Amino acid sequence: MSQAATVPTHNSPYADLPGISSKLFEAKAQKGLTFAQIAEAIGKDEVWLAAAFYGQAKFTEEELKKVSEVLGIPALESLSQLGDHWWPNRGLGPMPPTDPVIYRLYESVLVYGHAIKAIIHEKFGDGIMSMIDCKVNIEKKPDPKGDRVVLTFDGKFLPYAKW
Amino acid sequence: MSQAATVPTHNSPYADLPGISSKLFEAKAQKGLTFAQIAEAIGKDEVWLAAAFYGQAKFTEEELKKVSEVLGIPALESLSQLGDHWWPNRGLGPMPPTDPVIYRLYESVLVYGHAIKAIIHEKFGDGIMSMIDCKVNIEKKPDPKGDRVVLTFDGKFLPYAKW
Amino acid sequence: MSQAATVPTHNSPYADLPGISSKLFEAKAQKGLTFAQIAEAIGKDEVWLAAAFYGQAKFTEEELKKVSEVLGIPALESLSQLGDHWWPNRGLGPMPPTDPVIYRLYESVLVYGHAIKAIIHEKFGDGIMSMIDCKVNIEKKPDPKGDRVVLTFDGKFLPYAKW
Amino acid sequence: MSQAATVPTHNSPYADLPGISSKLFEAKAQKGLTFAQIAEAIGKDEVWLAAAFYGQAKFTEEELKKVSEVLGIPALESLSQLGDHWWPNRGLGPMPPTDPVIYRLYESVLVYGHAIKAIIHEKFGDGIMSMIDCKVNIEKKPDPKGDRVVLTFDGKFLPYAKW
Amino acid sequence: MSQAATVPTHNSPYADLPGISSKLFEAKAQKGLTFAQIAEAIGKDEVWLAAAFYGQAKFTEEELKKVSEVLGIPALESLSQLGDHWWPNRGLGPMPPTDPVIYRLYESVLVYGHAIKAIIHEKFGDGIMSMIDCKVNIEKKPDPKGDRVVLTFDGKFLPYAKW
Amino acid sequence: MSQAATVPTHNSPYADLPGISSKLFEAKAQKGLTFAQIAEAIGKDEVWLAAAFYGQAKFTEEELKKVSEVLGIPALESLSQLGDHWWPNRGLGPMPPTDPVIYRLYESVLVYGHAIKAIIHEKFGDGIMSMIDCKVNIEKKPDPKGDRVVLTFDGKFLPYAKW
Amino acid sequence: MSQAATVPTHNSPYADLPGISSKLFEAKAQKGLTFAQIAEAIGKDEVWLAAAFYGQAKFTEEELKKVSEVLGIPALESLSQLGDHWWPNRGLGPMPPTDPVIYRLYESVLVYGHAIKAIIHEKFGDGIMSMIDCKVNIEKKPDPKGDRVVLTFDGKFLPYAKW
Amino acid sequence: MSQAATVPTHNSPYADLPGISSKLFEAKAQKGLTFAQIAEAIGKDEVWLAAAFYGQAKFTEEELKKVSEVLGIPALESLSQLGDHWWPNRGLGPMPPTDPVIYRLYESVLVYGHAIKAIIHEKFGDGIMSMIDCKVNIEKKPDPKGDRVVLTFDGKFLPYAKW
Amino acid sequence: MSQAATVPTHNSPYADLPGISSKLFEAKAQKGLTFAQIAEAIGKDEVWLAAAFYGQAKFTEEELKKVSEVLGIPALESLSQLGDHWWPNRGLGPMPPTDPVIYRLYESVLVYGHAIKAIIHEKFGDGIMSMIDCKVNIEKKPDPKGDRVVLTFDGKFLPYAKW
Amino acid sequence: MSQAATVPTHNSPYADLPGISSKLFEAKAQKGLTFAQIAEAIGKDEVWLAAAFYGQAKFTEEELKKVSEVLGIPALESLSQLGDHWWPNRGLGPMPPTDPVIYRLYESVLVYGHAIKAIIHEKFGDGIMSMIDCKVNIEKKPDPKGDRVVLTFDGKFLPYAKW
Repeated sequence: MSQAATVPTHNSPYADLPGISSKLFEAKAQKGLTFAQIAEAIGKDEVWLAAAFYGQAKFTEEELKKVSEVLGIPALESLSQLGDHWWPNRGLGPMPPTDPVIYRLYESVLVYGHAIKAIIHEKFGDGIMSMIDCKVNIEKKPDPKGDRVVLTFDGKFLPYAKW
Repeated sequence: MSQAATVPTHNSPYADLPGISSKLFEAKAQKGLTFAQIAEAIGKDEVWLAAAFYGQAKFTEEELKKVSEVLGIPALESLSQLGDHWWPNRGLGPMPPTDPVIYRLYESVLVYGHAIKAIIHEKFGDGIMSMIDCKVNIEKKPDPKGDRVVLTFDGKFLPYAKW
Repeated sequence: MSQAATVPTHNSPYADLPGISSKLFEAKAQKGLTFAQIAEAIGKDEVWLAAAFYGQAKFTEEELKKVSEVLGIPALESLSQLGDHWWPNRGLGPMPPTDPVIYRLYESVLVYGHAIKAIIHEKFGDGIMSMIDCKVNIEKKPDPKGDRVVLTFDGKFLPYAKW
Repeated sequence: MSQAATVPTHNSPYADLPGISSKLFEAKAQKGLTFAQIAEAIGKDEVWLAAAFYGQAKFTEEELKKVSEVLGIPALESLSQLGDHWWPNRGLGPMPPTDPVIYRLYESVLVYGHAIKAIIHEKFGDGIMSMIDCKVNIEKKPDPKGDRVVLTFDGKFLPYAKW
Repeated sequence: MSQAATVPTHNSPYADLPGISSKLFEAKAQKGLTFAQIAEAIGKDEVWLAAAFYGQAKFTEEELKKVSEVLGIPALESLSQLGDHWWPNRGLGPMPPTDPVIYRLYESVLVYGHAIKAIIHEKFGDGIMSMIDCKVNIEKKPDPKGDRVVLTFDGKFLPYAKW
Repeated sequence: MSQAATVPTHNSPYADLPGISSKLFEAKAQKGLTFAQIAEAIGKDEVWLAAAFYGQAKFTEEELKKVSEVLGIPALESLSQLGDHWWPNRGLGPMPPTDPVIYRLYESVLVYGHAIKAIIHEKFGDGIMSMIDCKVNIEKKPDPKGDRVVLTFDGKFLPYAKW
Repeated sequence: MSQAATVPTHNSPYADLPGISSKLFEAKAQKGLTFAQIAEAIGKDEVWLAAAFYGQAKFTEEELKKVSEVLGIPALESLSQLGDHWWPNRGLGPMPPTDPVIYRLYESVLVYGHAIKAIIHEKFGDGIMSMIDCKVNIEKKPDPKGDRVVLTFDGKFLPYAKW
Repeated sequence: MSQAATVPTHNSPYADLPGISSKLFEAKAQKGLTFAQIAEAIGKDEVWLAAAFYGQAKFTEEELKKVSEVLGIPALESLSQLGDHWWPNRGLGPMPPTDPVIYRLYESVLVYGHAIKAIIHEKFGDGIMSMIDCKVNIEKKPDPKGDRVVLTFDGKFLPYAKW
Repeated sequence: MSQAATVPTHNSPYADLPGISSKLFEAKAQKGLTFAQIAEAIGKDEVWLAAAFYGQAKFTEEELKKVSEVLGIPALESLSQLGDHWWPNRGLGPMPPTDPVIYRLYESVLVYGHAIKAIIHEKFGDGIMSMIDCKVNIEKKPDPKGDRVVLTFDGKFLPYAKW
Repeated sequence: MSQAATVPTHNSPYADLPGISSKLFEAKAQKGLTFAQIAEAIGKDEVWLAAAFYGQAKFTEEELKKVSEVLGIPALESLSQLGDHWWPNRGLGPMPPTDPVIYRLYESVLVYGHAIKAIIHEKFGDGIMSMIDCKVNIEKKPDPKGDRVVLTFDGKFLPYAKW
């Protein structure tokens, strides 16, 4: 088993990530920066940036350089591991997810999946909401009865081909 | 195997639904109404209404009466099957889902689950976005490059108890 | 698929129950009785009674007669199906459970299972909390911030045999 | 395979825990302290503390300092691993669980899950017992026929949103 | 869902049994006979007989005739369904089993499987205990602290072929 | 992959065992002792002892000292790893088991599980054979047609609580 | 179990299809038409048509009318079951597939999946081949050593959104 | 977890590959060569070459020498690991695949598997498209609405033996 | 649950077979014929014939006529169900198989799969033994120590394509 | 991940094998010997020998010495790892198998399992073909249309005990 470390890469879902991922998380913790702060530095959204940290999105070389600068990591190293020749192998962690935060997302599919499908078909026809051409956003909505998380998926509708 | 029917209740995920569900879908098809139209009649959102049709939410007796009226189903019958004594047994269909529309939602958990969790923790602390006190909404966003589906979850943040 | 029915026996987890179970649920719905009211009539707890309705516990013939009387079901029929020769085939519904109420119980095992095991060992030694000699109770605890469910398992500690 | 060690972290469910977890367990064993004793020192319940040891709950920095003091572990090290930037990735061990202590909890879901759901609905309406705003307690109840484990979940009732 | 019936064939694991199995169970219940009593009539052990009732063993035509007589079932019918041309399709019910009685047997494999294997090898060499040439027996051993179940497997040791 | 070793701990089911388990197996192999011989030295049965070697049972400190002496392992080391603070995390190896010896035990549940359950209920009523208060024994029964393995489970009958 | 029928709808993967699917297959068999012949009549490819027969694609009302004419099925009936209000619930049959024809497709993913991904990335960048905007074609390529199946997927490349 | 590396071998599906695979990927990245370029040097298709890099195809010693030359890896080393005595253990990564590129291929089986099977049978009779005697090709088809991936499987038809 | 029947089609693996399969088994039982006898009548091997009865192979119309004659089933009926338009959907029953006869075949893959693969590669090179162009044979080999089953697979070797 | 090695032990199914297995494979590769050649040296069949290399069969000490001599491995080392105290933990690799060679064997169970069972019962009665007292053989049968693999299982028939 691994020795002491300061980032969540000890947990198994992270075991498949490139080694540089650990360094990104470590540097972020040491700098005390949020994803929002780092994201701003490279002109991206915080959710996209977090996904990239988890190896679920691909930095351009330029973005990688900027992130390396912000975090104080030698660009060379990150480029050699996450550079042009590297492609994300997406999909992270066991399913069904066991962590309650992630499980609640999974539960939304179980409980509302068919309803969402029905409404998409009624509004758009036979097709899907793309999860490739899709932007994910999280906002904090203050509420006196308890703040609310507003999670938005903005994905292109793709009609089925017929041939 | 079953005889001819006019609603999707032939498909297996629907096999667990109360018998009245078939009738709701059938009547909706015959009346040519959308979920939005029926939802408006009872003052609810179309996604919530579709969920209720799929047995994933609970009508009050009053809502059930209104839906019965709109669809021309005898209230007595629907009340006897979906009334006060009936409680949804939520969770519909196999996982991972095979239908591409629903799979894309599942894929959002696979690809963005950890990123969403990370941002929720950074913005709210140790807790979850409730899927019980949560509203789901779907909007059509016109776009010259292809219309977009905007799917929103608005759920209460619940901090972990410590004791 | 099945025709209209007034009880949750349409849902698949219930498909394995004896036919008489449907009648018990139906009669209960028609009489408008709660589990607590029926349980009182036979001197049992409401949770135990509900378990017996779901085929997860065994009535004595006498209890079955009383329940039949309270619900207005011919004793003969229930006795012939749930009588002395009948033994529960326990375990109901798919795992992991998809309904959020039941999933939260499952999640308690995922999140607190190891902690509970550790405390049981520290307090009792090497052994288990019996789920056979165990009583389950549910109380409603009023709370201004929202009522609370107090769920209690009172099970005998069984030390491991050594031989 | 790993070399000799003095804590249960060799077992696979623990393989996903942060490295500091091993040190907490080791120090606890060397000091000969119970969870109850350590919990008292930081004003928390023993079950919650055990959960935190297993990486299933989050210490505040202050709690972590106190625990470090009680166990004689350098605060710096634990803070760097379980500090503010660290978030639990909850859910520990395989399901169905194989250890009999934990399996019996799982069995309670299999056997009593539907009964518990039915009683919660009858007493509270359509909603769930939160496992996030939930306190778990274990008491030893002496009994001449064999001591009993009293395990209590005290969770907030959350009604389903309708929109 | 099925109509009322007086035997456990409603439960899903039994759904795969030949139709005559239901009749055997029904007749046994109506006659009020135990497996031991029926077994004696055909000169077999009660465990073997119960296995045959569950479609897990094969009656000879003669045994089937005797069983039919004891239970008052027309021999012709049982012969046509369980006769010479019929072969058991062994293996009954889901795994892991959910019923606590059967799960405890499964748990014996989980907990003691490797120990049993080790002792068999030490006492017999490289080979197995046959489950085909194996007799299963259950005795009740009275004990003031609670009666005990003595379950015995008496199986032929089969050494591995080497060639 | 691991380097040369003299015990079966290379195989994956053993990967979860405490490091000291390897040493126990190694020392046993070097001393050329059987489980029966070691068991006798501490006044226990060979099956229980083998289970303890596999981390499925808990030695008292005294037993551990004796075993350490018999095997020539420093008591200090074994005590520090399997001592008072250590609790077995029971359940070893994948299911269904792939090794034929262990699979045959699993097959006994598949083929005879329902028959065993039926006979236990007929002889004892509604309850289970405990696998916690249970002793497991293996005898070699000479037979001219091939020696037989006699495997016995002697477990306390536990009736279901009713409340 | 079902009575005699002339189409493959007896097999379980087809059990989820709308009842009209059976009629389409039956009529096709009775008319002795190939998918190619029917497809030509409505100006579609044979693979797409076969998919529609299996409930994996959606006919327009006009296409449905033409198919009904070609097959001699009353349009009314098919329209009422597969008409505008009906949406395919895609995904058919168990995975991994057991039929060797379909398994070989599955095997192509197992063996060549990573290679295909690598080449797509090298030729197109970070994105996917759409299975929604995708046309599937099958040609017979005569070959003296044995005819060859040429199976082609022509799918739009979709680059990942970045935001 | 592993140290920094420049190739995707950190990801778990690659964990089963021979060590030399990492070196092939690394050398390819450092040389900045595409699969197409390397493939050309040994007279093979790029898809086949990529498969061989992933350990899913077998180089001849001659091919391995050429690849070693192109990549500047000592032939000796690659020969000793992927030479004549080495046979691919095909099948890479978890199923269902989580990466969207590979999942879309899997989805093609789910959605079009039965249709493809039906057309193959109609065109060729009872048999399969071989995935052993099969060539896989990927072409980029420019399209003003977005370039298209044309993926072709050219496999021998194998009729079922009858005997 | 189904009514009385005289063939093994009650068991679930057979539930997916065409309705005519039941009739074939029934007629075979009533005529008291073995597979060998029926196979001889149509000039096929008994194993192939049994596979065809189980819907795992395809009769020609001529073979079907002969089988119908031998069994006294109207040819028309069997032709309409298993005729030219019908294609086997191969793969029967759950995996791992629970019946000991079939499980032993499965176990041969578990225990000897890698050894068989290694020898095939050494003797034939990189390729497979076809299960499509493969004949299966069973012979009874008398042996004083107990008769032996000789099961032979005679399959064409298929070398991997390289391109 | 592991460093360079010359044997297939890098692949995961082999990860559970004793360390000496790697050395056996390595030495075999370096000596350039086939299984047939080594097998001949110890008077065993090549399939059995390959199984023993994969840890699926048990060498006697004498066989191990001979193998060590043939391969030039110090006998001491192999004896200490695979000697008298070592017992195979049989069952290797994931199921369903992903490698096409091994999958085809698995497919034979899926497609012909029930037919083989039926013929065994018709020829031998109620019992099984032993996979313990079973010899496995592979022959190369030259054929102008392509050489054939003849794979034979010669296993003792074991009738079911009745008691």
